[in-house]
Amino acid sequence: MINSPPASFGTVAIVGVGLIGGSLAAALKTAGVRKVLGVGRNPTRLRGALDLGLIDSFTDSLAEGARADLIVFCTPVNRIVSGIREIAPHCSPGTLVTDAGSVKANICRALTKGLPSGVNFIGSHPIAGSEKQGYEAARSDLFHGKTCVVTPTEQSIPTALERTKLFWESVGCRVVELSPERHDEILARTSHLPHLLASALAAALPSEERQFTGSGFRDTTRIAAGDAELWQAILSENAPALLSAARDFEEIWKQLLQTLETGNHRRLGELLKLGQTNREGLN
Amino acid sequence: MINSPPASFGTVAIVGVGLIGGSLAAALKTAGVRKVLGVGRNPTRLRGALDLGLIDSFTDSLAEGARADLIVFCTPVNRIVSGIREIAPHCSPGTLVTDAGSVKANICRALTKGLPSGVNFIGSHPIAGSEKQGYEAARSDLFHGKTCVVTPTEQSIPTALERTKLFWESVGCRVVELSPERHDEILARTSHLPHLLASALAAALPSEERQFTGSGFRDTTRIAAGDAELWQAILSENAPALLSAARDFEEIWKQLLQTLETGNHRRLGELLKLGQTNREGLN
Repeated sequence: MINSPPASFGTVAIVGVGLIGGSLAAALKTAGVRKVLGVGRNPTRLRGALDLGLIDSFTDSLAEGARADLIVFCTPVNRIVSGIREIAPHCSPGTLVTDAGSVKANICRALTKGLPSGVNFIGSHPIAGSEKQGYEAARSDLFHGKTCVVTPTEQSIPTALERTKLFWESVGCRVVELSPERHDEILARTSHLPHLLASALAAALPSEERQFTGSGFRDTTRIAAGDAELWQAILSENAPALLSAARDFEEIWKQLLQTLETGNHRRLGELLKLGQTNREGLN
Repeated sequence: MINSPPASFGTVAIVGVGLIGGSLAAALKTAGVRKVLGVGRNPTRLRGALDLGLIDSFTDSLAEGARADLIVFCTPVNRIVSGIREIAPHCSPGTLVTDAGSVKANICRALTKGLPSGVNFIGSHPIAGSEKQGYEAARSDLFHGKTCVVTPTEQSIPTALERTKLFWESVGCRVVELSPERHDEILARTSHLPHLLASALAAALPSEERQFTGSGFRDTTRIAAGDAELWQAILSENAPALLSAARDFEEIWKQLLQTLETGNHRRLGELLKLGQTNREGLN
């Protein structure tokens, strides 16, 4: 899949050099991008990423970050729209802006207008990550073989969309196009609902019972160790779709509890088998 | 922790040579037990375990399996009581019988009487496992550093309890004593509830959305790939405690949904932080 000429992206600015931004920087360097500029609020952290060789230079000024051909926002979702509105007036015409946020409808809706002429935004969401945080956990192969959803709207410029797709393919992603709304509906089920369940399960554990957890509890709750602030922003941003996914989940959950209440072992076995088959389908 | 003289256990019979039984056999061989006898229903499978060096000999007759000093039932939970009742009349006085079942109250209650004099049962549950099945996935270090709960009752013979504890320590476990009822209450929260949630989440996934799952969904649902029949037996056996754990879980779950419905971002952040802290406490 790594078949596009990455050098053609020119200078790439990455705003927010954490796990995702740092991994993207590393992947771009590996793919041959000549200049990766790190943009952020904390120069000490940015220098750390520079020292690790993830980025070529850095700045804590969005205006300076605008001197790039392609800008990727890897900040928490609640800072993407404001950041792009702030950087856009400093961008040259022809600049492509995208992001890596896990929620798309609000962001894409907010950015369909108000950007300077010639500065195009296309929403993206590479489905890759970890419960770990910070550029220290960055990996140049984080995106290899992962799905990246790009979410054009009716206002999107076809060449900008095409360039965004090539960009994610250049770091190893398989690109799928979805509307921002459809993206949010699906990701509510595949990412935000699991996070909410894992957090509830971890939150419900009395500390004196920790010693009685095995690998099952640890796997099931792993993502609950993700940064609470980041996830608060994601889950809040996608609240309507997440609540709808939660209602769908509760239907099957209630059926399961009912089989236990009524001793319907056959039906319990059928539901567990459906879960087993679905899970095995992911391997 | 491996500080007891394992040879003193004499011949150990393992009834049910799957992942747990096979790993236990391997661990006992490593610890120096001279003879490990595999007992099961399928000679072809038992021969496979023999060929892998996990066991020293095998039989498909429970009566023959009774010729051991210590017998460990590693069968599915719903076959432990009947199996022990069947094997016990063939055992010599002084034989110790234990098990590795994930639910204890029903088993221990059923076996407090009816065993021949001199044949003692002590319930055990090593908290170790995997979503994988079969002796092919067996690992001699599966029990290293894991908690094993032993569940004596008022009728338990102190020397039998002591021998059971030494046995699990000899394969690397940290042994904790709990009443069978307390064990079931705790494991409902730390093992059976996570399984039920993972299964519900996996069962609720539309197959066309598989491509949009990331490592979070995969981790959270991993245990749902466990054998549905085995888990149907475990969850049914512990239904009352599991339903009670589910109600406790639903309280925090409803609070989380309410923060999303009302846009209470601060409270959502607090609950996620509690989950994050609890989960980090497991590492």
